[in-house]
Parts: sequence; C-alpha cells; structure tokens
Amino acid sequence: MKRRDFVKGAALAAGAAALTACGKEEQAAAPKEVAPAAPALSKQLRQLKMVTTWPKGFPGVGTGAQRLADSISAMTEGRISVKLYGGGELVPALESFNAVSSGTADMYHGAEYYWQGNSKAFNFFTTVPFGLTATEMDAWLYYGGGQDLWDELAAGFNVKAFAAGNTGVQMGGWFNKEINTVEDYKGLKMRMPGLGGEVIRQLGGQSITTPASEIFSALQSGAIDATEWVGPWNDLAMGFYKVAKYYYYPGFHEPGSTLSCGINTTVWNSFSAQDQAIVAFACAAENNRMLAEFNANNGGALKTLVEEHGVQLRRQSDDILKALGEASGVVLAEVASSDPMTRKIYDSFMSFRKQALDWTSKSEMAFTAARALDYTYGG
Amino acid sequence: MKRRDFVKGAALAAGAAALTACGKEEQAAAPKEVAPAAPALSKQLRQLKMVTTWPKGFPGVGTGAQRLADSISAMTEGRISVKLYGGGELVPALESFNAVSSGTADMYHGAEYYWQGNSKAFNFFTTVPFGLTATEMDAWLYYGGGQDLWDELAAGFNVKAFAAGNTGVQMGGWFNKEINTVEDYKGLKMRMPGLGGEVIRQLGGQSITTPASEIFSALQSGAIDATEWVGPWNDLAMGFYKVAKYYYYPGFHEPGSTLSCGINTTVWNSFSAQDQAIVAFACAAENNRMLAEFNANNGGALKTLVEEHGVQLRRQSDDILKALGEASGVVLAEVASSDPMTRKIYDSFMSFRKQALDWTSKSEMAFTAARALDYTYGG
Repeated sequence: MKRRDFVKGAALAAGAAALTACGKEEQAAAPKEVAPAAPALSKQLRQLKMVTTWPKGFPGVGTGAQRLADSISAMTEGRISVKLYGGGELVPALESFNAVSSGTADMYHGAEYYWQGNSKAFNFFTTVPFGLTATEMDAWLYYGGGQDLWDELAAGFNVKAFAAGNTGVQMGGWFNKEINTVEDYKGLKMRMPGLGGEVIRQLGGQSITTPASEIFSALQSGAIDATEWVGPWNDLAMGFYKVAKYYYYPGFHEPGSTLSCGINTTVWNSFSAQDQAIVAFACAAENNRMLAEFNANNGGALKTLVEEHGVQLRRQSDDILKALGEASGVVLAEVASSDPMTRKIYDSFMSFRKQALDWTSKSEMAFTAARALDYTYGG
Repeated sequence: MKRRDFVKGAALAAGAAALTACGKEEQAAAPKEVAPAAPALSKQLRQLKMVTTWPKGFPGVGTGAQRLADSISAMTEGRISVKLYGGGELVPALESFNAVSSGTADMYHGAEYYWQGNSKAFNFFTTVPFGLTATEMDAWLYYGGGQDLWDELAAGFNVKAFAAGNTGVQMGGWFNKEINTVEDYKGLKMRMPGLGGEVIRQLGGQSITTPASEIFSALQSGAIDATEWVGPWNDLAMGFYKVAKYYYYPGFHEPGSTLSCGINTTVWNSFSAQDQAIVAFACAAENNRMLAEFNANNGGALKTLVEEHGVQLRRQSDDILKALGEASGVVLAEVASSDPMTRKIYDSFMSFRKQALDWTSKSEMAFTAARALDYTYGG
C-alpha cells in the first residue's frame, strides 16, 4: 500500500470521503472531459460507462468496482465492455446515481446511502447504525424481501440495483482521548458523517464534516477529537495512528456496508436474458469477493497497527454501546417517518433484523465467542 | 418444506447424510443407468455432467447446486449446458470426486471433506472443528493463500475446484438429555461423523455413524443419545424436535462449511478464457447466495422450533466449549501429521486462523455482542 498516495494525495483522499457517507466535497469537483467511447468494432459490441463514487483503484471499494467491470467484459468476451470512471472523472462522485438515472452514464458502483437526498430509504440498502452485518444484509436482500423493496424504490428513479461488495464491520474510529463513559461524548468533536453523525449528536457530541484530505491535520491540530474511517486496512494507509492514540471498536455506525451496482433501467431492459444473468451474477460474485478482501487485509493491518505502531485498541463499554444503540434506534425511527415507502422498507428491515439477531446470537456470535475462549488449539 | 420427504423418504434422507461428513451409506447405492446426453445442436454446444453429493433439490445444498448449474447454462446462453445428477444417480454420492478425477463426470458439487480418503488435507477446504467461519474461509481462500494450496492439492487428482456455497455456522445438535459438564460426554452415544466425531471420542463419547434415514428412529428408541445435523432449516424438516428435547449451540464441529465445485482439469483447460471466467464467477456468486439462503431460512426455522414446537435451546457451557476446543486442536494436529502436503495446508490454515480470530473479535464478534445488549431500538 502506498501510504503517501492517501495521506498526501488530496484528490484521491477527497474522493475517499465518500466511503463513509456523504462528505460534500465531491459535489464541488468539476466533471472532467473524457474521451468519447471508442467506436464499436461491430454492431454487437457495446461499451458501457460505469461511474463510481470511489477514486479509481482505491483499495477495497475501488479495486472491487474495477474487478466487477472487468468481470462483465470477460464473461461477455467483450460483447459488453465496461469502462470505469473514478469519482469526479465523468460526473462528481455523489452525482453517480443521478447520472445513471438520467442516462448520462449506464451504470454505477457506489453505496446507496449516498442517494439519501433522493430518498431516506436508500440508507437501508447500504447500512444503518446497529443494523445488519454483511451476511445478514445478503440474507435480507436475497431471501428476506429486501431486493424486491430495493427494486421498487430504485425503479422510481429508472435504476435497477444489486448488492456488489461489502466492507464488513467497520471500526469505531480514532480518538485522541479515552472514552470511558457516555458523558465523554458530550462536546466531543467527531468527524462522523451520515446517520452515525446524527447518533453522535443525540449523545451531545458534535458531528463534524471534515473533508477526507483534511482529517489527518484536523486530528493533529485538535480541530477534531476523533474520526471514524473504515477499518484497519484503509485506516493504516491514512496514517491516523500517528496523530490519534486510541482505536475503538466495534463500529456501531456501519456494521456491514453493502456496496452496490446500479444500472439504468432502459439499459438493463435492453440486455438479453444471458447478459442480465452475467451482470447479476458478476455483482453477486463481487459481493462475495470484496468482503473477503477487506477481512483478509484488515486482519493483517490490525496486526501491523498494534504490533508495529503501538496503537491502543479499546472496546467501547457496555454502557456506551447501549446508549449508542438506543440513540441509533431514535435516529432510525425519525428516518422511517420520512415517507410511506421509507416506512415500508424500515418495517421490513426491522422485522428481519429481529429474526437475524436471534439466529446470529446462536450461530456466528456464539461460535466466535466460544472460539475466543482460553484453551490450547493445536499446540 | 415437505417434511415427509425428509423423515419418510429414505432415499432422499440417505443421500442427505453426506451433509455432515462421510456417512458410508451412499457408497452402497448402485449407480443408476442414465439416458445419454442429448445430441448437441451444433458443434459449439457442449453438455457437461455435474454429479453432486446431495439428493437433487435438497434444500440449501441441492438447490444451490442446481442454481449453479443453471447459472452456467444461462450465462453461456446454453453454449455450455450443465446437467445435474443427484447423489447416486450417475455415481454414488461419495464417488463424485473420483468420477470427476477420472473423467466419468465433468464436474461436481459437493464438500471437500468427503474426499479425505484421498488426502486428509481436503478437510481444510470444507471446515474443521473450531476452525473458520464462512466469511473467514472466503478470506483465507481468496486472499490468504488458501486457493493456491487447494489448486496444488487438487491438481494431483486432475481437478480444479472453487468455493461454491456455504451452510454457515451449524448447530451443536439434538440431545435427549441435558449436557451440563464435560463428564456428560463420557459414554454419550452421538451421531457425529468426520473430525467432529473424533473430537467426541476424545471426550470419552461414542461417535456413531447412523444413516440419515435412521437417525430419527435411533433417537426415538434411545439407540443414540444425540445427533448433529445442519441448522434449524434442515433440522426442522427432519422432525428431530419430536424425539429430542434439547437443541444445543453453537456447533463447534462445522463453523462455516464451504461447499465446492470441482472441474476435471482437462475439461477446465479446454474452456476459453471467457468460459473459465463464467464458471469461476458463477461459483463465487453461489458462494454468496447459498449462505444467504441458509441464514434467512435458519432464522425463520429457529423461531418456529422455539415458538411452535417448544424446543429447549441451550448453550454449551464455557467449560465444555473449552474442552471441545482443546480436543479439536488435538485432532487437527493428528490430521496435520498425515503427510507433508497436509502439514503445509494446516500451517497456512492455522496462521490465517490466528489473524482471523483477532480481527473477528474486534469486528463481527464485538459488534454482534454489542447489538445483543439490552437497549431499546426503534421503539
């Protein structure tokens, strides 16, 4: 990983803010002129424009978007060639959805919560505070009614979308002081955009929107006391361990952020059944791959942060987590009251969450806790 | 779910034993004659035979295998048509690997631990007691060196294999008495095949190999005291709640069973780059889908078992779990000593497991525990 590209490369880092919900800086970026699509070699060849909310090649989300684009090209033997544009290249990163909706671009790779200006309901298709893990999101989307609701919501904007990646559970963030009680959140200046930021405000903190390129210096100068980012892999690259001592877990605000690929409905309907299958299965495959890439790299990066950089890992206390959980519920109930469609999606999500919480507590949660007990394994 | 198909349909249930490692009953099933493949419509069309270790249409693993076969056909627009054979239809279920290795069949959908007669190392590519969860298995396979080792192992048998499904964390099983201490495992007659059974023996229990079709009556008559199976979805269908009162969690023996698709190497090498991509991405997509289907259906089935059938859910105590964990390590170390290749794979697996355990304890495990605390969420 080239750390300097992240810490010093303002353009790259600015785009990366989109990782954690709706930094506004991308809005200001002027769309660049791009070369027109290369002429098709025959009438059967088709070039599609995929805009993304990520800097091109950004580790995890950006590399995953590229893998998705390449897989569609490979599986169609170039009959459909997908050209990827980094955030700001063709349109500003956060305009990706509107660009696909209007037909300016054919498809996007991004995160649905960036489109919450179109409908608050989009939040549920990425992640919400104290919501579902990656595998639970998949269960809800594929077999719990989630995809049908997503189709209904997105169709109103001329978009057909699929799950196409996941960051997994994110970290709670970097703090320049210890957080021991709920009171410590009062007045805390934390870089935390989106619904997570609203939860911080519920606890008396200040949710600051710091452009990604400025987080490092803001932490260093004390302009902010804390920041969330993604997880060890991306956080190590940002160098936050140099300017903040405490690294808290778990991240309550993004427990399994689903990334998405949306296709303009007219383009989608123009696909043959074969090409619809290729795009849908390519998305499901990337949904599987990206989570694996995050988990594998987060494991190694966490080890580096702790063993080489002396980072202090801290778990948030039960009292703090309960307060964050309750505040998250308050924020979500407000979101649900936005409009009938958002309420309908909220109801489905909440019902599935209850069942998923029960099952996970007997499976993943119980097993991982058992495995973490003190015993000798394999000598 | 048609319960009678499971409880009364001996043929179906017999094949289903393969779900939980190496019941021998499939070996005895005579291969049926099958109709020859339909003549190809043109020289470009190709029909491949996919043998499976599951009864055709068995919920979860069998339906997933069918979805995989269909997706390859759909994405190639029938250029490659995959015909699926249930366990015993073309060859006995557990002969699937050898059939693909020798070219009798073109590909299989199964679980690698069934091939442990060929090499003990295959166990690591499905699941091992106290091993990795589904998402950790993906991380090891895709980005932790696992796939390269799998390729090296399988190449010796003329097979190229991919992860192509997962059951998620399985349940500990059904018991007709409470298990309160490690002592209670002494003399316990438990239907538990494979490495899990060896762990039970380490604790002084008896590992019984009961054909799937006879488990229900064996539990009822007291011939066995306990049985593992899969998870709530499949277990509800088997009707075990009628003859065993206690349902224990978590399942230490199969924390994330990866299912697999293997292709005869000569067949694989005959594919174009496009078709190799289609098969590989189809497998990754099914790897994502099947886990979601299990998790969604397990959640609903667990609710039914508890609320409608009064099943007593019990967590195994920390002392028991630690004893099971330690015994699992002993069994795995024995497996590792089988041969140099198995040792090499064991070393990679164990190294990755250590890192994965650290990361998961800060992410999935910490988040799901936080979410399960007592607080009001959304009113």
